[in-house]
Amino acid sequence: MRSTEVKIDLRRGRAACIGVGTELLGNNKLDLNSLEITEVLETFGFDVVEKRVVGDEIERIATAVRDLMMECEVVVVTGGLGPTADDVTRKAIAIGLGREIEFDAEVEALIKKRYRVAGRVMPEVSRSMAQVVAGSQVIHNGCGSAPGILVHEGLGLLAVFPGVPWEMREMLNVHLVPELERRAEGRMRRSRTLLLGGVGESDAEQRIHHLYDAFGRRNVSILASYGVVRLVLTASGEETRVEARLDQMENAFREILGEEVAGTDVPGLAHAVVPRLVETGMTVATAESCTGGLVGAALTEVSGSSAAYLGGVVSYSNQAKEKFVGVAEEILIEHGAVSEPVARAMAVEIRERFGADWGLGVTGIAGPTGGTEDKPVGLVHWAVAGPSGVEARHRVFRGDREIVRQWSVNAVLDLLRRRLG
Amino acid sequence: MRSTEVKIDLRRGRAACIGVGTELLGNNKLDLNSLEITEVLETFGFDVVEKRVVGDEIERIATAVRDLMMECEVVVVTGGLGPTADDVTRKAIAIGLGREIEFDAEVEALIKKRYRVAGRVMPEVSRSMAQVVAGSQVIHNGCGSAPGILVHEGLGLLAVFPGVPWEMREMLNVHLVPELERRAEGRMRRSRTLLLGGVGESDAEQRIHHLYDAFGRRNVSILASYGVVRLVLTASGEETRVEARLDQMENAFREILGEEVAGTDVPGLAHAVVPRLVETGMTVATAESCTGGLVGAALTEVSGSSAAYLGGVVSYSNQAKEKFVGVAEEILIEHGAVSEPVARAMAVEIRERFGADWGLGVTGIAGPTGGTEDKPVGLVHWAVAGPSGVEARHRVFRGDREIVRQWSVNAVLDLLRRRLG
Repeated sequence: MRSTEVKIDLRRGRAACIGVGTELLGNNKLDLNSLEITEVLETFGFDVVEKRVVGDEIERIATAVRDLMMECEVVVVTGGLGPTADDVTRKAIAIGLGREIEFDAEVEALIKKRYRVAGRVMPEVSRSMAQVVAGSQVIHNGCGSAPGILVHEGLGLLAVFPGVPWEMREMLNVHLVPELERRAEGRMRRSRTLLLGGVGESDAEQRIHHLYDAFGRRNVSILASYGVVRLVLTASGEETRVEARLDQMENAFREILGEEVAGTDVPGLAHAVVPRLVETGMTVATAESCTGGLVGAALTEVSGSSAAYLGGVVSYSNQAKEKFVGVAEEILIEHGAVSEPVARAMAVEIRERFGADWGLGVTGIAGPTGGTEDKPVGLVHWAVAGPSGVEARHRVFRGDREIVRQWSVNAVLDLLRRRLG
Repeated sequence: MRSTEVKIDLRRGRAACIGVGTELLGNNKLDLNSLEITEVLETFGFDVVEKRVVGDEIERIATAVRDLMMECEVVVVTGGLGPTADDVTRKAIAIGLGREIEFDAEVEALIKKRYRVAGRVMPEVSRSMAQVVAGSQVIHNGCGSAPGILVHEGLGLLAVFPGVPWEMREMLNVHLVPELERRAEGRMRRSRTLLLGGVGESDAEQRIHHLYDAFGRRNVSILASYGVVRLVLTASGEETRVEARLDQMENAFREILGEEVAGTDVPGLAHAVVPRLVETGMTVATAESCTGGLVGAALTEVSGSSAAYLGGVVSYSNQAKEKFVGVAEEILIEHGAVSEPVARAMAVEIRERFGADWGLGVTGIAGPTGGTEDKPVGLVHWAVAGPSGVEARHRVFRGDREIVRQWSVNAVLDLLRRRLG
């Protein structure tokens, strides 16, 4: 047996999440709350060492709390705090920590008030939410009726929040962040993400591999997703030094990756491209076939995109390519709808029609049917027409219909990005 | 203490999943494998009672296996079976079950052969994959090099698969399904999902509430997502009776919900609409503003949609609405771009231009900026023009930019669906 002191030492900096709710154990729901909680925990230098999802079962919740509080400094539980018979988390926490559960009239008064403000009378069943774990701190729910719970136990901290994402989020920021900040004592962990376009995961890895040693393998992670690669750089330490360290890392990676880097902390290629267009007062129009509107959808996902995106045509039929984009019938007949000349014509003609600075064209076979030996499923041609002419590319993307479409969107946005410089 | 017999009895029909891998504990990755595994387990009537995610730590994996094997009939572990130093699952399983780990020359020969077939020599590091848990059954990996493991322990079954989704999936189907089938002895659990369009979650719940009692609360679950509601109906029992029970449930819900039901087991409204168009030989064209191409993208997500979807225009600027859709300048000036007359004109004109049977128009303010007192952020007008005229609707949707856009797509597709009848 380890002594108590050693155990306490081992707990420091370790954290765990417990998601409560039978619905989280089905085949269509995941404990998404744990991602936000993990992000906050990591910011303050905590390592999440385990995540559990348990149903609305008192014993199992109690066991999870007991097990993980033995090993972690911070445990965050979400779900099961509502007023119905399913909501057993309060009772389970008390059992797991070996504490009493008590009725708290003050808490009841607060819950009643909340109902009153909303013009309703507190239903009898909601009284159960005024049952509190002895010695715990009841925390106010700014967005709903179920209060949260904080329990300090020696070094350990147990935080219990409702499962409703916005209620959880508010309590996380208002009540857990200051606690974590205090415990971190100026130590932080921050991340910065470089978005790479038009480069494969293994190519990127090959080129940056030697930097892993310089910065530590666990401080760099690489995530690939159909035409973009995200490089997550992480630094920990004294708050004041973390940003400097991240700058140093970013510079080192940018030096090697050069123009593969589309941006820092941007969610996608459109978020790198649109601000660049707006900044320079330039406009873009789109002609899409296999992507069916996804390129326009990606550009307009960016708030403020109306200053740069004029619009476009989804030319799913050949007739639409001729009539609404302006692709000459001869080109379609000679080369077929999925061909470089058609992609080029789409980009050039849509630019012309909309009077835009840039025109994008995409045509391809997303599958699962429609492929031939010459033109297999996954073949996509894309082109970008601009002030200095038109450039085209093609590739056979592997994956299902949605994956081929996603690749295509990123491919054409990346070509535009590179031409914008 | 419970007697051993009681314990065995309690394990029956219970299952758990363990996801292994430090990367699954970060803020951007979830254990998606557990969803597929859960689906298979539920099909054969098993209840998943707990899910855990643990890092590449021998002790923690061993503890999870030991804990969950005590309580469950079936435990499925994924991840940590590769050849690198991180891959500690084999060793952890042996410790968790209190078994030896042994080198197996036959397994090594198989792994070597796999490399040879791929024209490569087995790297020395891959020898570790030939370490097997004593008394276990090594299972072949049809899609990769790391073998899986099956361990029978009394009533209990432990299945260990690689974390790579397609390798996991193949082993799950080839090796676990027959085991579960045998254990289920003809008992099954199947689900059927009714997709509802144009109805809110609480409205739907209000109307079907009394059926919960008839079929059991836990056999019906309701999932809402920005303009669609999914009603998941579940039945268990003898295989032969399950389908009849689901038919009975579906009929009862359809009787009450009538035309709110868009379809059975369809992933989205477009998947309900497109086949209906193809079936009747009808075509559709789209004019989109705030959705920026998402309506076209949704329609073309359905394989074979080219038979029904002719294409459309993304008219993000007023000029595009005039020039490429054909909305009269006067209407735009008098009513503004986000107005019922503009939505109607978009639907009518795009139908005309494309020579389609149906025309869809959507215009709105997705936010976060651009709202006024009269026309707040979230205000969306949509219209459907068809053989018998044009119909328009509007609503102020609440949520961020992407949520407003998602609502808008579902709103216009649902209006088309209802008009198709």
